[in-house]
Amino acid sequence: MIDPMLQKIAGHLANGDSIVILPHINADGDALGAALALGLALKSLGKDADVLVEEAVPSNLDFLPGQELIKFNPEKTYDVAVNIDNGDITRLGSRERYYSSARVRLSIDHHATNKVMADCSYVDTRSAATGEIIYDLIVNYLKAGMNKDIALCLYTAIVTDTGGFRYTNTTSRTLKISADLLDYGIDFPYVIKKVFDMISYTKMNLMKQTMNSLLLYGNGKLAVSYLTLKDIKNLNVKSDDYEGLVNIGRNLEGVEVSLFLREEQEGLFRGNLRSNDYVDVSRIAEKFNGGGHKRAAGFNITGKLDDIINRLVSAILPEIRGEN
Amino acid sequence: MIDPMLQKIAGHLANGDSIVILPHINADGDALGAALALGLALKSLGKDADVLVEEAVPSNLDFLPGQELIKFNPEKTYDVAVNIDNGDITRLGSRERYYSSARVRLSIDHHATNKVMADCSYVDTRSAATGEIIYDLIVNYLKAGMNKDIALCLYTAIVTDTGGFRYTNTTSRTLKISADLLDYGIDFPYVIKKVFDMISYTKMNLMKQTMNSLLLYGNGKLAVSYLTLKDIKNLNVKSDDYEGLVNIGRNLEGVEVSLFLREEQEGLFRGNLRSNDYVDVSRIAEKFNGGGHKRAAGFNITGKLDDIINRLVSAILPEIRGEN
Repeated sequence: MIDPMLQKIAGHLANGDSIVILPHINADGDALGAALALGLALKSLGKDADVLVEEAVPSNLDFLPGQELIKFNPEKTYDVAVNIDNGDITRLGSRERYYSSARVRLSIDHHATNKVMADCSYVDTRSAATGEIIYDLIVNYLKAGMNKDIALCLYTAIVTDTGGFRYTNTTSRTLKISADLLDYGIDFPYVIKKVFDMISYTKMNLMKQTMNSLLLYGNGKLAVSYLTLKDIKNLNVKSDDYEGLVNIGRNLEGVEVSLFLREEQEGLFRGNLRSNDYVDVSRIAEKFNGGGHKRAAGFNITGKLDDIINRLVSAILPEIRGEN
Repeated sequence: MIDPMLQKIAGHLANGDSIVILPHINADGDALGAALALGLALKSLGKDADVLVEEAVPSNLDFLPGQELIKFNPEKTYDVAVNIDNGDITRLGSRERYYSSARVRLSIDHHATNKVMADCSYVDTRSAATGEIIYDLIVNYLKAGMNKDIALCLYTAIVTDTGGFRYTNTTSRTLKISADLLDYGIDFPYVIKKVFDMISYTKMNLMKQTMNSLLLYGNGKLAVSYLTLKDIKNLNVKSDDYEGLVNIGRNLEGVEVSLFLREEQEGLFRGNLRSNDYVDVSRIAEKFNGGGHKRAAGFNITGKLDDIINRLVSAILPEIRGEN
C-alpha cells in the first residue's frame, strides 16, 4: 500500500538538491537516529544533505554513524527542509529559520500532538518511532539502498522510543522492521548498552539514596522512598535524573504501591505514586489535591517529612487492603 | 523447509495419547513457557498432556497460562515423554523416571552442550530460546491453532532467554516470531515487568550495598565496589542474587573497567572484572591466577579488603591508561 503523502514527500526529496534535516532540540535516539538515517540515505542518492542540531551529540549516542552530516549554524539556505520527530515548531530552537526559509517544507513525525505547518506533513501515530516511518520512506519510497550504517541509526531510533520493545507502543510492525535491520549485522547489544544501561554518576547516587531511604509497610505491599534537598546537595542533578526512581519501590517483589517523595523546596514535596496490579493510585493522589491514572499519579504536599509519610501511609494502606 | 527430525517428533506426538512434558529443574521462563505452550497446543489437539515440574512455579512466572496442566509426582506412565530446554538428563531431577519409562522419548533443546539420549532429539543452537523451536513445531508441524495463551507462553520463553531481545543470541527470526506473537494481543509489557523488572528485597539490598561501596579511580575510568560478609549478614542471599552486581560499576558513564569483589569466606574474595570498550580484563585476571574473556573475567584473592583493593587498582590503572 502506497501512501500518497509519503509519495509526495519522496518526490520533493528527489527533486531537491540541498536538503536540511531538523530533529527537535535535545535530540534523543529517535530524533537523531531518524535524522541521520534519512541524511545517509539522501547522501547515497547524491543529495547535498545536512543534519542540523541544537546541541552536541550526547555521549550515549556518540556511536551513531553519519555524524559527518551534522552542521551547526551553517550560512546557507536549502531547497528542502525536513522537520523530524517534532510536533512543535518552537522545538527547532534557533534552527527554525532554516525551516521557514526553505523552498519546500516537509514534516515527518509520530506525535499525536503535532501541529507543525508544512507543505507536506506526514504524522503517523501508529508508528512507535519516527524511525519506523523513515525506514518505510527509505525502503519503499526513496528506494535508497539500506545498509549497515542506516540500519544502526534506525534500530537506535526504534529501541529508544519503545524502551527496547518494552512499551505498549511496540507493534508487530516494529519488530518486523527491527528483524530486517538486524540482518545488516548491526551490533545491537552495544546500542542497548549505550542507550539504556549507561547511567550517570549522579543518577546512580540518586538511585542509591532512594534505596537507602526505602522502607516497607503493610506486610511489604507499600514501599516508601524519598530524596530530600540535603540528599541532592552537591549532586549536579538534572530534572530527568529523577525519572524512574519511583519504580525502584514498584519493582520490589510483593509491592503493590510505591510512593516516592522528592523535596522540591524546603518543606515542599512532590509525591509520585505507582501501583502494580489493583490499587487505583489516582484516588489516593486526589485526596492530596493531585491526580493521574490508575497505575501512576502524583501530587504536591507540604510539611515535615515524617508527618507527610505518616499521613500518606495511613491513606494508602486501606486502599491496599481494599477497605475503601 | 521441513526439518525431518521435527517432522518425526510431530508424528510421535500425534500418535501418542498420553504425553508428559519435562522442563529442567529450576524451570525458568524459557523452560516453563515452552513446556506450557507445547502442553496447551497438544491439549487443543485432544491429547492428554501433563507438564511435570520439580518446584512450584516461581512468582515472576505465576501469570503463565496453562498451569492447570502442571502435575507433581503423578502415579502414571506415559506414551510419550518430551525433554524440554534441558541438555543434561540429571537436570530432570526426580522426574527422570517419567522420561525413562515412556514408550517414546523425545528431546527438544537449544543448548550446544545437550547430551540427552532420546528416540528423537532436536537440538537447534541457532534458536535463542527453546520457545522458538516450539513455535515452529506448533505452527508448522503439529498444525495446532496458535492462540493468545500459547502466544503469551512463547513470548515469555523468548524474552527470558534473549534478555528481552538484548543478548547476541537474538536473531531476525527471533523478532519475526515475536512479531507474530504480538498479533495475538498479549500483554507483553506485563511480561517484561514480571520477568525483568521485579527484584527481591534481598537483591535490592545487595544493589544498594554495592552502590554504597562504590568508588571511582583513574578519573572515573575504574569503578570498584564490593560486598563483605558483614554486608550480607541477615540477608537471605541466593547465589544468583549476586548476578549483575558488577554491571552497576560497568554501566556508569565514563567507566571503562568495573571491579566487583565479594567476600565468600572470611578474607577470601571472589573478584569480577568487566570492561566496556578496550581493556582486556582477562590479562588482569590472569595476573591474579584467574581467567576469562576480554570483557568479562574473574579470579579469587585472599587478604585484607583495603590491601586487595590497593593491589588491584595498581594493576588495573596501567591497563586503562594503555601503559602495558
